[in-house]
Amino acid sequence: MAKEKKLVEAITPMAEDFAQWYTDVVKKAELVEYSSVRGCMILRPDGYAIWENIMHQLDARFKETGVENVSMPLFIPESLLQKEKDHVEGFAPEVAWVTYGGNEKLEERLCVRPTSETLFCELYKKIVQSHRDLPKNYNQWCSVVRWEKTTRPFLRSVEFLWQEGHTAHATYEDAEERTIMMLNVYADFCENVLAIPVIKGRKTDKEKFAGALATYTIEALMHDGKALQSGTSHNFGDGFARAFGIQYSDKDNQLQYVHQTSWGMSTRIIGAIIMVHGDDSGLVLPPRIAPTQIMVIPIAQHKEGVLEKAEELRSELKEAGFKVKVDDSDKSPGWKFSEQEMRGIPLRVEIGPKDIEAGQCVLVRRDTREKRVVALNELTQVAGEMLEQMQNDMYARAKAFMDSHMTEARTYDEFKDAVANKPGFVEAMWCGDEACELKIKEDTTATSRCMPFQQKRISENCVCCGKPAKSLVYWGKAY
Amino acid sequence: MAKEKKLVEAITPMAEDFAQWYTDVVKKAELVEYSSVRGCMILRPDGYAIWENIMHQLDARFKETGVENVSMPLFIPESLLQKEKDHVEGFAPEVAWVTYGGNEKLEERLCVRPTSETLFCELYKKIVQSHRDLPKNYNQWCSVVRWEKTTRPFLRSVEFLWQEGHTAHATYEDAEERTIMMLNVYADFCENVLAIPVIKGRKTDKEKFAGALATYTIEALMHDGKALQSGTSHNFGDGFARAFGIQYSDKDNQLQYVHQTSWGMSTRIIGAIIMVHGDDSGLVLPPRIAPTQIMVIPIAQHKEGVLEKAEELRSELKEAGFKVKVDDSDKSPGWKFSEQEMRGIPLRVEIGPKDIEAGQCVLVRRDTREKRVVALNELTQVAGEMLEQMQNDMYARAKAFMDSHMTEARTYDEFKDAVANKPGFVEAMWCGDEACELKIKEDTTATSRCMPFQQKRISENCVCCGKPAKSLVYWGKAY
Repeated sequence: MAKEKKLVEAITPMAEDFAQWYTDVVKKAELVEYSSVRGCMILRPDGYAIWENIMHQLDARFKETGVENVSMPLFIPESLLQKEKDHVEGFAPEVAWVTYGGNEKLEERLCVRPTSETLFCELYKKIVQSHRDLPKNYNQWCSVVRWEKTTRPFLRSVEFLWQEGHTAHATYEDAEERTIMMLNVYADFCENVLAIPVIKGRKTDKEKFAGALATYTIEALMHDGKALQSGTSHNFGDGFARAFGIQYSDKDNQLQYVHQTSWGMSTRIIGAIIMVHGDDSGLVLPPRIAPTQIMVIPIAQHKEGVLEKAEELRSELKEAGFKVKVDDSDKSPGWKFSEQEMRGIPLRVEIGPKDIEAGQCVLVRRDTREKRVVALNELTQVAGEMLEQMQNDMYARAKAFMDSHMTEARTYDEFKDAVANKPGFVEAMWCGDEACELKIKEDTTATSRCMPFQQKRISENCVCCGKPAKSLVYWGKAY
Repeated sequence: MAKEKKLVEAITPMAEDFAQWYTDVVKKAELVEYSSVRGCMILRPDGYAIWENIMHQLDARFKETGVENVSMPLFIPESLLQKEKDHVEGFAPEVAWVTYGGNEKLEERLCVRPTSETLFCELYKKIVQSHRDLPKNYNQWCSVVRWEKTTRPFLRSVEFLWQEGHTAHATYEDAEERTIMMLNVYADFCENVLAIPVIKGRKTDKEKFAGALATYTIEALMHDGKALQSGTSHNFGDGFARAFGIQYSDKDNQLQYVHQTSWGMSTRIIGAIIMVHGDDSGLVLPPRIAPTQIMVIPIAQHKEGVLEKAEELRSELKEAGFKVKVDDSDKSPGWKFSEQEMRGIPLRVEIGPKDIEAGQCVLVRRDTREKRVVALNELTQVAGEMLEQMQNDMYARAKAFMDSHMTEARTYDEFKDAVANKPGFVEAMWCGDEACELKIKEDTTATSRCMPFQQKRISENCVCCGKPAKSLVYWGKAY
């Protein structure tokens, strides 16, 4: 029992220190290990398996919309990075530079890609000639590097895994349609697979991507009341096309610039899964993304027939399409329960000699600890129902949490009070002036998260300067 | 018709200039585009889709043997790379060095991983304590960088995609078992999925991996008679473990060093697919790896009902489990045939007004051009049979080609004659002395490809020095 205590005691309670709780979970659930390169993390099997599931499901959704995958170089020559003015200003300060190949100094420095707009522009310039070549809907799964000073596993690291989609279109409207389409793919994936409700909206100019006309975002709310930008989609208009000279001949044989987009989701979203669903016993994974959905744990496994029965149940559940394992290690059942809970495995099946005698087993949900004694011949059916119910309940709980952490602020005093005392999003009107965003950040540390697509008019004036309001903005502290 | 000619004329005939034929196919089949970074290639959708299929199928085979995927950092600190003496000597001359992060010079240079043994050693040192923690069977899918001077798409590039498996075991025997197991996974995958016959064997000490006790290889034979190393598997013994201090406590509570392996297959294998199966019309893809297995090409598609019928066939074939597309572009049928052949799509379905009237369609195999007129209600069955037959025939042809390009050499004159005049592998006995390998390379440009598992004794003496022979070796010119 001493050992069992140790595993749970190893995590700091969420209410005591949320940041420490997060770090503890990431480490104790064996998602991540630190490497000797500052800010670069190792994704261990359980961490990477979550990313694999995200990749497979998101990739299938991309392909349904006509996206094709490619692989672009890791390196960008300095001169190429510099071609689009806003873009280089945004990224140059935080890139890693390769200056030597073997023992030779390079004539031109190469940066390790922080994002690949410039590489895709170079490709599109080569392969797009006619309107028949459009659209190009390309994507790649890869890692990128940004030389961040302060890093945290999943949330901010020097190297991280992501996908980056880059498309080229004949018109602004086509590009805008793709931009919104991909934002909707992200939002739908978050809500239906990850059980994470999100706010869809547009970033203010201050917060948009370097080189974009418009950046759209989905914002999720973590359990500590801070927001996490969970996916972004950018419409570049023809800005990059003009900088790189990407033109096509239209149906009337006139040369036109292409219109481009890019959109990305990264391993950051794993941070969101942890901080939206986790609890003081560790990770809680939504059944649709869990690498292992069910852990069968034998009780008194040294007794005759127990391990065999556990294996039989595993095989039956696997046959029915579940991702299932048996923990037949020589640890105690209690220790196994703790581990299964720490790893966030959605459902546990307990099976011991008495259960076998009674022709039953015990199912326990990870999130609510709801326990059901189930006849063995109903196991697969009930397991399916419980997982489905858990998936839905997790979303409903997260949605209720988000809805109850929204504060409308009509005056600046209300606003400051909300940011200081009411964790979550603050809804307030804004005049459209960057100066107000800067003042708000200075005064409260809150930033504009987005101008939500679902606008409402809660007052006529900017919450900061009092001038006529242009838009409702969601504000908040953010990761 | 002028246009149609252009596409085929665009490739140099194989017999005229094999290297140029290869480059033409890679480019015209739109597998690869060059980037502005020397030696770094862009994988276009058709090229990357082949790699995706390789990844999915190989990954499933890995997982069946208990392999788990992880993600390791892109960078290796210089001091870490230097920990194992042979390893650093092998790789340091050809790595890319990051020296700046943002505007700051780094205290220690970081190399972009050329391979990740050192990173995995660092991880295993942290997470392996007890014999209960063994084995660790980890793998990652990623890209690596080697600063090659001369590069060719797929065959040798500065950056390339691969998988690298790295395992840790309690004993030498366990490590050896895993090393051979993975070599067999590669060989089976090549033969059964890629229709590429391979020779399994062990590398000589001169040709083995930097830091390995033993390197095993699969060697394939290209259409020009040159060999291509297609996958390797290394047993490190406890060499890395001693350099990095990776120890576990055994059942008797004694500290022991772990034994390690690594094994990899890369996008190089796509070069093998091209050079084993391609012809003067372009790529020929084995049905089991082709991203598109069947292309439906409507004839006289402006006529009523043709496009609808083509779409109906596509949908029927898709339903039956085939990867199928319709080419409904506004190009001529002849041009579409050329494109389908250039891209190596295994089967084409031709459907026009007369076919519809007769309730039939025409199936054409990419490799043999065998044409079959098929009743529409037998389409899916016949398509399946033809693809299966094509897969088998492709392997049989490649096997017959390899078998007929083997020359036994008993004297050095026979050896030199074989290398100069008989493309393919030369089988000859070897004394085990590196001096003979060096002399043979100097005299003939041929290198030792492997000591095959299937040994035979074709003479008693080394083909080079005449001393008593230790082993049969396959020799050849190689990529």
